[in-house]
Amino acid sequence: MTSVPHIDPGKETLPLFCGVDVGGTNIKIGLVDDHGNTVEYKKIPTNETEGPQRYMERTTEVIREMMNAIGRPMDNIASIGLATPGTMDIEGGMLLEPHNLPNSYNFPIRDCLSQLTGRPVVYANDANAAAFGEYWLGSGKEFRSIIMLTLGTGVGGGIIVDDLLIDGEHSHGGELGHIIIDFSENARTIPTGQRGHLEAYASGTAIIKRTQEALAMDLKKESSLHARIDGGEKLSPLMVAQEAEKSDSLSLHIVMETARYLGIGIVSLMHTIDPGAVILGGAINFGGHETELGRKFLDRVRQEVKARAFPVPAKYTVVDFARLGGDAGYLGAAGKARVVAHRDSLTT
Amino acid sequence: MTSVPHIDPGKETLPLFCGVDVGGTNIKIGLVDDHGNTVEYKKIPTNETEGPQRYMERTTEVIREMMNAIGRPMDNIASIGLATPGTMDIEGGMLLEPHNLPNSYNFPIRDCLSQLTGRPVVYANDANAAAFGEYWLGSGKEFRSIIMLTLGTGVGGGIIVDDLLIDGEHSHGGELGHIIIDFSENARTIPTGQRGHLEAYASGTAIIKRTQEALAMDLKKESSLHARIDGGEKLSPLMVAQEAEKSDSLSLHIVMETARYLGIGIVSLMHTIDPGAVILGGAINFGGHETELGRKFLDRVRQEVKARAFPVPAKYTVVDFARLGGDAGYLGAAGKARVVAHRDSLTT
Repeated sequence: MTSVPHIDPGKETLPLFCGVDVGGTNIKIGLVDDHGNTVEYKKIPTNETEGPQRYMERTTEVIREMMNAIGRPMDNIASIGLATPGTMDIEGGMLLEPHNLPNSYNFPIRDCLSQLTGRPVVYANDANAAAFGEYWLGSGKEFRSIIMLTLGTGVGGGIIVDDLLIDGEHSHGGELGHIIIDFSENARTIPTGQRGHLEAYASGTAIIKRTQEALAMDLKKESSLHARIDGGEKLSPLMVAQEAEKSDSLSLHIVMETARYLGIGIVSLMHTIDPGAVILGGAINFGGHETELGRKFLDRVRQEVKARAFPVPAKYTVVDFARLGGDAGYLGAAGKARVVAHRDSLTT
Repeated sequence: MTSVPHIDPGKETLPLFCGVDVGGTNIKIGLVDDHGNTVEYKKIPTNETEGPQRYMERTTEVIREMMNAIGRPMDNIASIGLATPGTMDIEGGMLLEPHNLPNSYNFPIRDCLSQLTGRPVVYANDANAAAFGEYWLGSGKEFRSIIMLTLGTGVGGGIIVDDLLIDGEHSHGGELGHIIIDFSENARTIPTGQRGHLEAYASGTAIIKRTQEALAMDLKKESSLHARIDGGEKLSPLMVAQEAEKSDSLSLHIVMETARYLGIGIVSLMHTIDPGAVILGGAINFGGHETELGRKFLDRVRQEVKARAFPVPAKYTVVDFARLGGDAGYLGAAGKARVVAHRDSLTT
């Protein structure tokens, strides 16, 4: 997404919102208007080793530069939305022990940014914020409620119902990789040792593990993956996707099995939240709508959902890929800030 | 609960809400004030064979009598909350195909009651309404968000977050008996044939089935259940509870296994909603806090939750029995009507 240097002068009285999405590598910062148009956007390196105070100062400098660029004062930002990875205390505005931000433990990041900018800051989990972005401006924008599953190294997620982002009472809302799909004692484990979680079956890490197991059973070495690994490449979900695209049957089986597991988890979520749409986001989307493999993957998810869900939600719930990619986080952070600001203006 | 014939005269200007909980056998009707006090209450037989128009007319007569009894006009009822079993279309106000109300299929029950009473009517699923009752006035009243599981012939439920009852986009919100806890091909089935649902393990029906299986394996007939069944009694969850209380080990095992299955399902729900409390309601509570068996059952649920949930929600999420019994439905229906009325008065 490129910056739009000048906004429509007629819109200058509209409130602005700022979305800040802090990741282990980069911080994405966007000024967003009330309709979700990105007015200014910049990505800066996190340089996390400098510590959170410093990267929040640099974030603040960028926000000031952006406001200068459009000739508006800082207090034209109605509210800032700040998204970070967990663990975190959303209500208290604290980073607790975020694995991706090892120099930022137990840091009051929300109030830090609020002090630096002089603006109110609304805090969110990054996966939840991405879900809010898709809800406001992406694949979920036609719906009153959505669930998003984010497929990466782990499986994250977010839930929005009627503009309400379900953060959870203890900042653990939408940890959708951690619903239990198999309670048996030989169920697969996640790195923390817990058994039977969706993430143990459908994450990037799980795809690698399941592929390794399948390759160990492939005694005749029929899979084309063997040659690449023997050639020194490291097994990855991308490699599995590439070979599946070339019709390697072992790789294709892994991809379709991943879809099946996701479908099972999605049914539990449909019978809990019954959303208008279930959105699949994250890096591991097997090409999305752009490739035949992505479309096959999505069809297999939908097939499992239709087979297992109750007839009415099975018929009407839309299951689709996300649309905003890596922009979902800052857009959703801004979106959550916007909804909170509008709600506060109603009730005060 | 007995009727309170006269309300505090000083409260006469407060709005009133009416809760109507339609079941297959009875209709419970209560007038409830803004603080949740029941001002008038009556239970009438549904006589469902007469059809929904007639039982809604009789309900309206009761509401009029109640308002006469306290000397206030009908329009002092700010809103009526109506709860029924599903299947239903909550937004459209329609009964669709409720199994318990076989003469009421495809009936516009919400608008029928609204026309008869001249008051606005807010519609809810009965299990969701019961959850709202516990949230407003029962075991959930200290919390911003709760999940309730209702243990009966089936397993029902409801979810409330920040006063928002999650009805679902297709009236299937909070169908908490239908999360999948075992995706394997030999998982237990529910009557509709679907596999691995929580209800296939933890409902009254499932308790009977699992007990029958255990008795068939009990070749030495050590369980005290055999004598009762051989004496002509019909196996029931109550009988299992009674023998478990007398330390019959097979029966006790069934009860504790039920607790374990519930704990597994609850962990999925905690990682989805992350509520302040998880409330266990419904007829099958093994005596609740009143009996040693009930307390053992609850301890076993909590133990499974602590073993499987992430540390923070495991530590802080309250798991407890419901408190309102059969009153939860009409109270929650009134409570939902109240919240909608207050919200509408804010936004219009």
